[in-house]
Amino acid sequence: MKRVTIKEVAAKADVSYQTVSKVINHKVEVLPETAERIWAAVEELGYRPNYTARSLRSQRSRTIGYTWSPTPHGLTNPILDQFLQSMFHTAEQVGYYLLCFPYHEDNERQLAVYAELIDTGRVDGFILSSIEYKDPRISFLLDRNFPFVGFGRSDDNVVFPYIDVDGGLGVYQSVKHLVERGRRKIAALAWPEDSRVGNNRMAGYFRAMDECGLVIENQWIIRGGGNYEFGYQACEELLQLPATIRPGAMVALNDYMAMGAMAALQKHGLLPGEEVAVTGFDDNPIVQYLRPSLTTVRQPIWEIGKKVIEMLVYQLDEGKLPDPICSLIPPKLIIRQSSQQRLKKGEEA
Amino acid sequence: MKRVTIKEVAAKADVSYQTVSKVINHKVEVLPETAERIWAAVEELGYRPNYTARSLRSQRSRTIGYTWSPTPHGLTNPILDQFLQSMFHTAEQVGYYLLCFPYHEDNERQLAVYAELIDTGRVDGFILSSIEYKDPRISFLLDRNFPFVGFGRSDDNVVFPYIDVDGGLGVYQSVKHLVERGRRKIAALAWPEDSRVGNNRMAGYFRAMDECGLVIENQWIIRGGGNYEFGYQACEELLQLPATIRPGAMVALNDYMAMGAMAALQKHGLLPGEEVAVTGFDDNPIVQYLRPSLTTVRQPIWEIGKKVIEMLVYQLDEGKLPDPICSLIPPKLIIRQSSQQRLKKGEEA
Repeated sequence: MKRVTIKEVAAKADVSYQTVSKVINHKVEVLPETAERIWAAVEELGYRPNYTARSLRSQRSRTIGYTWSPTPHGLTNPILDQFLQSMFHTAEQVGYYLLCFPYHEDNERQLAVYAELIDTGRVDGFILSSIEYKDPRISFLLDRNFPFVGFGRSDDNVVFPYIDVDGGLGVYQSVKHLVERGRRKIAALAWPEDSRVGNNRMAGYFRAMDECGLVIENQWIIRGGGNYEFGYQACEELLQLPATIRPGAMVALNDYMAMGAMAALQKHGLLPGEEVAVTGFDDNPIVQYLRPSLTTVRQPIWEIGKKVIEMLVYQLDEGKLPDPICSLIPPKLIIRQSSQQRLKKGEEA
Repeated sequence: MKRVTIKEVAAKADVSYQTVSKVINHKVEVLPETAERIWAAVEELGYRPNYTARSLRSQRSRTIGYTWSPTPHGLTNPILDQFLQSMFHTAEQVGYYLLCFPYHEDNERQLAVYAELIDTGRVDGFILSSIEYKDPRISFLLDRNFPFVGFGRSDDNVVFPYIDVDGGLGVYQSVKHLVERGRRKIAALAWPEDSRVGNNRMAGYFRAMDECGLVIENQWIIRGGGNYEFGYQACEELLQLPATIRPGAMVALNDYMAMGAMAALQKHGLLPGEEVAVTGFDDNPIVQYLRPSLTTVRQPIWEIGKKVIEMLVYQLDEGKLPDPICSLIPPKLIIRQSSQQRLKKGEEA
């Protein structure tokens, strides 16, 4: 467990230790072969810069604060573990750890925790998630000019560094796929209108329907709690519509709603994917095992965890905002049995 | 966001602030009515002791280190979010935060992180989970005499503070329930023999079968990867046994294996819960929605998260090990459709 020193790296790479130091701190340019040799030695020996010593010198805590909104009862958060692990690993590479603290629904109480962590020097910056419209944490941190990066957007006119999944693109892909397979009457199981994530995703529904020249019936958009029970009930409502406007497909904004809808179809003797196609969002590992398996949208979570940390550490190291200040990552449509059947000409639903 | 002071608590409770200070630090006994009044005022005003000041005085970091083994690909960890939230909330009550760091499969690398966190004074203690036999972290921390508490046991002869779910009791309850409903030939879908958690759970299977006077066929115990695919395949194997020893019930050590077994039964035209009963372990929120819904064992995760932190903070505050040094928490059998049917006399399976 002895720590590998910079001198050992230098010996292995056959350069001076000053050169190693400059290269790994990006303070100098050397021949590509030399840089290559140094990085190979770093890798092989498992060298890690002594960030603790640096931290003492710089008075930084080398700690990043993070909290998240807990999963409601009866659900699991399918991306939590991967997102956390990705952040931990990326942070460790550059000598940071994450300090995690509880999420408080009460805004004043929540902000008091952020203030305490800043005032006591316990963290150098924050990662925010579960971001909503008019998120008070964002204005608070902008006012204090304290570094942070969001996983998720807020209001359009507020400028801050973030990464987000392009949820609209995910739903857009789902709708386009359904149309391509012969579906025309496509309903949406959505969250309430004040949901920021929900609105981002629904934008893709509206855009795709519009591009395909399909008129949306008011009754096709049902908004509610985002859980299994809501999906079940929304599907029941949709099945009671007159035959002319009864949907041939349902796009759910998450997998739980999609699962509820599939169960309601089955209760009515309908096979999801035949009479009515269903799609979800998240690619909860469970949905590949459903019968029929569920078409859904997978978010590149590992990549997002890595990027939010990199964007924050850039701010801490360089003292300026990342450029670009924000970006959207495309998700991936995973096509499975619940939607893959191609309807014949004249049998479109 | 102004911090509530101890004087405001004292005014509200109509006592001196010295009394408040002593009561909330458990340094004095007062009349129960007085204590009640003080705690009510603490609650109502949202008072939190100024631990940061204390921390500066004591040179403690008031930080607890934690890492966990990531969920394998294609699975979710159904208890992670609740366990973390419970620890965060309990820790915050007493002025602690959690520092989270990545899990490394390589033992030497893993221990180097523990050593660094200790040596740099970043944490005052650790919570360990994903504990296995001969866990090198335990001997390392015992050698260094550094405070920690485990969620989970290790080898029987190693003494350290831990809380664990009595997984054996959970499986024992499952088997007893199955026998009570008329099942006699009960198979087990288990982990490999070097799995500490697996062996704790299997002990309950052996004890219950023995108590019920049921002889276990060798072919009934199938060990493997603990995922859906393994459960599916194990069930297929069991269905190929001769009728005389073909199982009428399958106890799976987790929900994923149980789900795989249910799918295999359905593929063979058998209805889980009728011809063959199935039980799982974990109460993954999804399993209440399966058709049939799955009988399973629920772990009291919130309580465990709370207790591990309390046991660690006790060590930090009092400088001695908690008494009792370890305890087992009973889990709860949740009976659903996959096992509830009672077989008639003479029709036992």
